[in-house]
Amino acid sequence: MAIITLTTDFGVRDHFVGAIKGYIYSELPEAIIVDISHHISPFNITEAAYILKNAYKTFPKGSVHIIGVDSELTPDNKHIAVTIDGHHFVGADNGILSLLAQEINPEKMVEINIHDRVQGIFPVLDVFVKVATHLARGGQPEVIGKRIDSIKVLKGLSPVVNTAQSQINGSVIYIDNYGNVISNISRKFFETYRKGRDFEVWARNHSFTSIHERYSDAINFNVEKSKRNADGKRLAIFNSSNLLEIAVYKSNLDTVGGASSLLGLSYRDSITITFIG
Amino acid sequence: MAIITLTTDFGVRDHFVGAIKGYIYSELPEAIIVDISHHISPFNITEAAYILKNAYKTFPKGSVHIIGVDSELTPDNKHIAVTIDGHHFVGADNGILSLLAQEINPEKMVEINIHDRVQGIFPVLDVFVKVATHLARGGQPEVIGKRIDSIKVLKGLSPVVNTAQSQINGSVIYIDNYGNVISNISRKFFETYRKGRDFEVWARNHSFTSIHERYSDAINFNVEKSKRNADGKRLAIFNSSNLLEIAVYKSNLDTVGGASSLLGLSYRDSITITFIG
Amino acid sequence: MAIITLTTDFGVRDHFVGAIKGYIYSELPEAIIVDISHHISPFNITEAAYILKNAYKTFPKGSVHIIGVDSELTPDNKHIAVTIDGHHFVGADNGILSLLAQEINPEKMVEINIHDRVQGIFPVLDVFVKVATHLARGGQPEVIGKRIDSIKVLKGLSPVVNTAQSQINGSVIYIDNYGNVISNISRKFFETYRKGRDFEVWARNHSFTSIHERYSDAINFNVEKSKRNADGKRLAIFNSSNLLEIAVYKSNLDTVGGASSLLGLSYRDSITITFIG
Repeated sequence: MAIITLTTDFGVRDHFVGAIKGYIYSELPEAIIVDISHHISPFNITEAAYILKNAYKTFPKGSVHIIGVDSELTPDNKHIAVTIDGHHFVGADNGILSLLAQEINPEKMVEINIHDRVQGIFPVLDVFVKVATHLARGGQPEVIGKRIDSIKVLKGLSPVVNTAQSQINGSVIYIDNYGNVISNISRKFFETYRKGRDFEVWARNHSFTSIHERYSDAINFNVEKSKRNADGKRLAIFNSSNLLEIAVYKSNLDTVGGASSLLGLSYRDSITITFIG
Repeated sequence: MAIITLTTDFGVRDHFVGAIKGYIYSELPEAIIVDISHHISPFNITEAAYILKNAYKTFPKGSVHIIGVDSELTPDNKHIAVTIDGHHFVGADNGILSLLAQEINPEKMVEINIHDRVQGIFPVLDVFVKVATHLARGGQPEVIGKRIDSIKVLKGLSPVVNTAQSQINGSVIYIDNYGNVISNISRKFFETYRKGRDFEVWARNHSFTSIHERYSDAINFNVEKSKRNADGKRLAIFNSSNLLEIAVYKSNLDTVGGASSLLGLSYRDSITITFIG
Repeated sequence: MAIITLTTDFGVRDHFVGAIKGYIYSELPEAIIVDISHHISPFNITEAAYILKNAYKTFPKGSVHIIGVDSELTPDNKHIAVTIDGHHFVGADNGILSLLAQEINPEKMVEINIHDRVQGIFPVLDVFVKVATHLARGGQPEVIGKRIDSIKVLKGLSPVVNTAQSQINGSVIYIDNYGNVISNISRKFFETYRKGRDFEVWARNHSFTSIHERYSDAINFNVEKSKRNADGKRLAIFNSSNLLEIAVYKSNLDTVGGASSLLGLSYRDSITITFIG
């Protein structure tokens, strides 16, 4: 199996994605191409890392993931291929891969050096397609790049705890299709500092005293349906990525609104947890 | 061939769809995955049923269709797998499958009971992927669920005829990409009560005295092109789903508008047919 | 390999695209289906031709490209299959294929004549799927149509040069996902009339005296990052399609804006090049 995934900010209206797929099939007819997302906000590195981090794990080991976000080759922005957790990632050294490598050490990292050998109508992506199809065939990274020891690291994206360890200060890193607001506070970070205490989660002027495991845990199904007041109920939850999320039960951004619109929360806004006692 | 289709309200910006596809390929490398739509309005059961009903029939028998709309497992919302017309459908017992089963009796229905055996980052879909890949391999539904005799039925979605049989009262169930307005009045329902009479179709304050078979039937091609007044012409038609549709010839929601905007019609609005004589 | 691509104005919310894919797999189980774009502006022939022209070239020869834009069969709008550059194109004779055939003479052109043999829920596309799967299997065009010598030609889409050869008058033919503004002035057309002279590119009241090869060529990377004023810089470039494009470095239509919004440029607006001396 030769799976190649695509995560880009190209959108799906233009010809870019189609042209890349055509070129992959020309290079590797047996490829299985999977779109992860083409709707990353233009040049948004945090968002690309969040999406890819949550999507790649379900793919078989050996899959190759192309990242077409902020990928033009410049003196500041080398092209790299990094192997993490048995998966290959091909993109620019702009910080996205450091976010992916936060929890798992990369097995191998190379700076791609085939640019003089590539001629195509779309230089940046031609390079990534050449590299990705090489890796998907089982080729060694050293053939298309030279070993490197470090990649660019992005700072300031982790939550912090105050010195008294009474408060965690995190922030909003993503707002999803339902308007759910996802913070950078992981279950692990929360549990490390909680030490069994009660707590309050604060998002603007709303607070929550429990963090659920499932959306429906916020609803009492023993109460008759018409009396439950379930739809529109606000809740805090550890989501499927194990990150603290502020959600609205059965939200719909087009009609009743989601947590983002109802609570007035935006990308980079503050989410705070205060421990009691 | 092992085709698995996806119909969800997940959108395509987030990681959900990519993660599901990765998991399907991990379980069944030879799967062919087809997106039907990821743009169902959140939790909109009627819309999901309309889209799926019109899309599934062209697929080969034996295809498996995953429905990721309003699918969280709750005491009110069991997970089911239903075989209809040689196709397998996997989703929640929320009424969507009753709409699909309106015209064709299900061959087999089971309540999925593998939830204790599934561990994943995304429980609801993990269950559906496990079930879908089992069925796509040719596995029996009884292995992943227990037989049931009935599923939840949605009411109030069919058109009605008055006692004098002089008028059909239907409603708008979907507005498509072109702004075409689709009603719940089928050709069969219309013909049953028409009995050869003339008629008027009423949509707000607009009326039509004929229902076309093709969009271009509304245009007189014997007239010179510049004098046809074709673009923007309003018409009633039985669409490719055999449902009464109000359309505008060569409409464009971004520029001239479509039937929905030009005639002021919304989801659930009334569409009436009055028989004459 | 049997690749079939889809370029349509159907959008991805409705059931149309899913139904077509199901029908392709029913006819040709080994098909590889690739979406080029389903977001062509409704009935926009220029846009469809631009997208397809830029996407098809990367696909392997022998690929079949279905064009589902303005494709209803009418006395004015025959169905045709055209072989250009080793690729098969299936669509209506509405001018799209004449734009594709501008630079390369078609190898073969037929008018499709199987309409009486096709019965399906979606007549126009049923015809195209039947034809496309026939061609993808290696079948001859003459089996599904009769040879024709000419197709409909669209005029007025090329740039013009004044009699003194001192000025090129072009226009905007497309605005992409980043808000980049693409003109119909090709590098070849420009070089033919330039004859080594200096020049000014004019787009509304903005002018440029150089045309770059890469977006990052507009940036001086020898200057310290904080002093570069790179983001938001306006530039003229020959894009990956070798067409003159007005762009904004790292633009984002949702935040800082792109060339289209910042310079106030729309589809069909004028782009002029004045030669000096």
